[in-house]
Amino acid sequence: MNANLIRHAVHLAAILGLYLSGAMLIPAFVDLYYGHPDWQVFAVTAFMTGAISSTTFMATRSGPPPFSKKFGFLVVNVLWLVFSIVGAIPLWLSSVNLDFAQAFFESVSAVTTTGSTVIVGLDDAPPGLLLWRSLLSWLGGIGIVVLGLFIIPYLRVGGMSFFKMESSDTGDKPFARLASFGRAFLVIYVSITLLCAISYGVLGMSRFDAVNHAMTTVATGGFSTHDASFGYFASIPLFWASTFFMALCSLPFSILIVLFVRGRLDALRDPQIIVFLGYLTAFSVAVATYHRLANGVEFHLALTHAFFNVTSLLSTTGYASEDYSLWGPFVVMVAFICTFIGGCSGSTAGGMKAYRFVVLFNAIRSALNKLVYPNAIYAVRYGKNTVDADVQRAILLFFITYILLWVFGSLVMGALGYDFITAVSSVITCLSNVGPGLGSLVGPAGNFATFEDAELYLLSLLMLLGRLEVLTVLVVLTPVFWRQ
Amino acid sequence: MNANLIRHAVHLAAILGLYLSGAMLIPAFVDLYYGHPDWQVFAVTAFMTGAISSTTFMATRSGPPPFSKKFGFLVVNVLWLVFSIVGAIPLWLSSVNLDFAQAFFESVSAVTTTGSTVIVGLDDAPPGLLLWRSLLSWLGGIGIVVLGLFIIPYLRVGGMSFFKMESSDTGDKPFARLASFGRAFLVIYVSITLLCAISYGVLGMSRFDAVNHAMTTVATGGFSTHDASFGYFASIPLFWASTFFMALCSLPFSILIVLFVRGRLDALRDPQIIVFLGYLTAFSVAVATYHRLANGVEFHLALTHAFFNVTSLLSTTGYASEDYSLWGPFVVMVAFICTFIGGCSGSTAGGMKAYRFVVLFNAIRSALNKLVYPNAIYAVRYGKNTVDADVQRAILLFFITYILLWVFGSLVMGALGYDFITAVSSVITCLSNVGPGLGSLVGPAGNFATFEDAELYLLSLLMLLGRLEVLTVLVVLTPVFWRQ
Ligand SMILES: [K+]
Ligand SMILES: [K+]
Repeated sequence: MNANLIRHAVHLAAILGLYLSGAMLIPAFVDLYYGHPDWQVFAVTAFMTGAISSTTFMATRSGPPPFSKKFGFLVVNVLWLVFSIVGAIPLWLSSVNLDFAQAFFESVSAVTTTGSTVIVGLDDAPPGLLLWRSLLSWLGGIGIVVLGLFIIPYLRVGGMSFFKMESSDTGDKPFARLASFGRAFLVIYVSITLLCAISYGVLGMSRFDAVNHAMTTVATGGFSTHDASFGYFASIPLFWASTFFMALCSLPFSILIVLFVRGRLDALRDPQIIVFLGYLTAFSVAVATYHRLANGVEFHLALTHAFFNVTSLLSTTGYASEDYSLWGPFVVMVAFICTFIGGCSGSTAGGMKAYRFVVLFNAIRSALNKLVYPNAIYAVRYGKNTVDADVQRAILLFFITYILLWVFGSLVMGALGYDFITAVSSVITCLSNVGPGLGSLVGPAGNFATFEDAELYLLSLLMLLGRLEVLTVLVVLTPVFWRQ
Repeated sequence: MNANLIRHAVHLAAILGLYLSGAMLIPAFVDLYYGHPDWQVFAVTAFMTGAISSTTFMATRSGPPPFSKKFGFLVVNVLWLVFSIVGAIPLWLSSVNLDFAQAFFESVSAVTTTGSTVIVGLDDAPPGLLLWRSLLSWLGGIGIVVLGLFIIPYLRVGGMSFFKMESSDTGDKPFARLASFGRAFLVIYVSITLLCAISYGVLGMSRFDAVNHAMTTVATGGFSTHDASFGYFASIPLFWASTFFMALCSLPFSILIVLFVRGRLDALRDPQIIVFLGYLTAFSVAVATYHRLANGVEFHLALTHAFFNVTSLLSTTGYASEDYSLWGPFVVMVAFICTFIGGCSGSTAGGMKAYRFVVLFNAIRSALNKLVYPNAIYAVRYGKNTVDADVQRAILLFFITYILLWVFGSLVMGALGYDFITAVSSVITCLSNVGPGLGSLVGPAGNFATFEDAELYLLSLLMLLGRLEVLTVLVVLTPVFWRQ
């Protein structure tokens, strides 16, 4: 039984491999265009990946896959693992000197849209390699939205069942509607990316930089083509353009579809959108005010940098306009807290996510009321809907499991000799798929180049755990899952 | 209606005031015995407190109190506030130079059995003042156990309803049984204190030090009579004696009663005791091993100091044998994590508490199993009992509310200019009623003397929140509570 499930999962992974081998031709052509010898690495890897994938595809062909929740969990994990490994191969073989653990970390960081890097000297890195990182991020972003809109809700992970398409959305032909919904998403995702690239180009980026940054902005990935990250451009209009697109891509794509396809502006009155934009504004204004008062920065500059960096952290993009950890202890604390929170579900953003906070605060309020008036009925609401007890519990458990993973990860990093702030911030920045942490090593001015192989594998696992809503990965690691 | 509730609550507070005015005579006599002029402060304060309390007692006398959950919450808050304020008065008026905010902080720290201090120069402080701090801690310990065994479970706060006496325990005369249970507790509490004081005396402490440290050990308070804390004594037998008594008083007193009164050793096979002793041993051995390897300390010394300091943190006592934050990053991380965890419910220990972790881990396991096999039934168990959905939710909400308070507190401390590690550790050490934090300011070698008044009030509020299981205080701060 398990063998059959694995066979089918590998079959689907082979299809993914075929797509990826095709995608590798893009950086191959780019390196060829710019005259960089690394085009051969991409061409050879594309050929190898294509050959292995098609052989595997043939070898594992059989009847229709056995749909079950168990199969769903298995497929999600296998696909993301294969995605990461295949993505790592050209990075490993390229002229930039990475060992496999580093290439794997970089690839996981890309496909999970984390954006932490082990590469120093991005400004002089081969263009094909830079594009491959951005492309992996961009494709990872698609994978995450598809997962968040179509798969995780049906697997009932972390209270996401709440966002299952309602019958009114899917009509009487659910699969046909899902397919048209999927097409609409792709059109919007590509359109926003183009719009973002054009904006960046018009506002002064080179064509190559504009395309790369547009891809990692829309995916809220945060990879840059410069060691100084987005701060390299030092342009206020560019900062605001990026802030807009980072925030936009932290909103649920299901709502963006309703907004752009049906033109319904009222779709934005979603509880998690209101809460997300609310805390984004609150943190940004607080940081700007503090930056103005503590460091005497002009208010319009303080506001620009505050909105840019806070949006970058909350959208889990991870760009930095400058080293905000030097602005003062309050900003360090805000950055640390923002690294946990994240954006909306059904977007490319990571973190704990806004809708869970909506449910959490309503649950706390209901519990306090119930303590005083035990016989009164206080429903926990999400907008107009009542959140049932099972979903509430799933959401509460998600929060705690998330925190526990952070605690265990930090403990291990502490045992490996990292100081307190590096340990706690490197673990949460990976788990939340943000990118930068705090401290001299992994802060906005640092990177992960000095980490040992074992540490990189641990952090890679954390990125995958966070990206797949934690429980999707944990469940596959339980013995019960593999019982016949 | 509310006015009537407040009147009855104040009446009970007046009774507490009378007891406290009596207790003040003890440090008065001690100062008189040691020939310290502060005896007058205690004598005058005792007289004033007695006079005000008896007047208030008379003025608020009326029919029997209106038993309701609302009244219960109000009484608990009023009693602890009055306890803190009355305890602060002699500290404020004494020859040690404290302003009221400092005296209030010191008193809250005592009655909540936290043990953080703003006094520098304990070795030369007046004996009456030292004894008053220890006595407040010791009385606070009684208050906490009574609260945890008899009141909080009935108020259904944070999943504690689980520990309501079962009908088999209380028989058909619940109040009579509760009274005899209460007497048994007092006898055991006093006996353990005496035993602890005698052990300390036999092992080399002066009589005064032995009495003071016994009181703050049994209350898991952690106030010392020396700036160097327990490390002043530098005696391995004393460290182990203290480790034993700290761990003992972190166990549920309901179980200690069954153990000592009925002689039933099997009572120790309680899930939360097993889990508490389990993580205590695991952390201690890990720290000892690390200390041995990283700092080359002889293993038996490493083991002694590891067990002493880890037990001190987990029991939320807060003694330090030396500055363990210098042992290395792993120990800093362990100390930080231990500050959250705490001991068993129904003991004098604070923190999140072991039984909640028992339920949490079973809830996570059940949730993971349910993800794969949605139709199977996986009950969440605590020992032989099934934990119902409401209690599970209360426990999960407790964890998250606790974390949120820590986050908000840290944010405020960051805004007030404290560095990351001082901010996050001072807030959690107050919330968990542990005592020492991390960093040069509030670490095991530091104290809270340099904090501003507003900061001391904030930290005092956190200590009270933590001590009263968070929701007991929060509920009184909601508008719904005061609605007629
Ligand atoms: K990111
Ligand atoms: K304590």
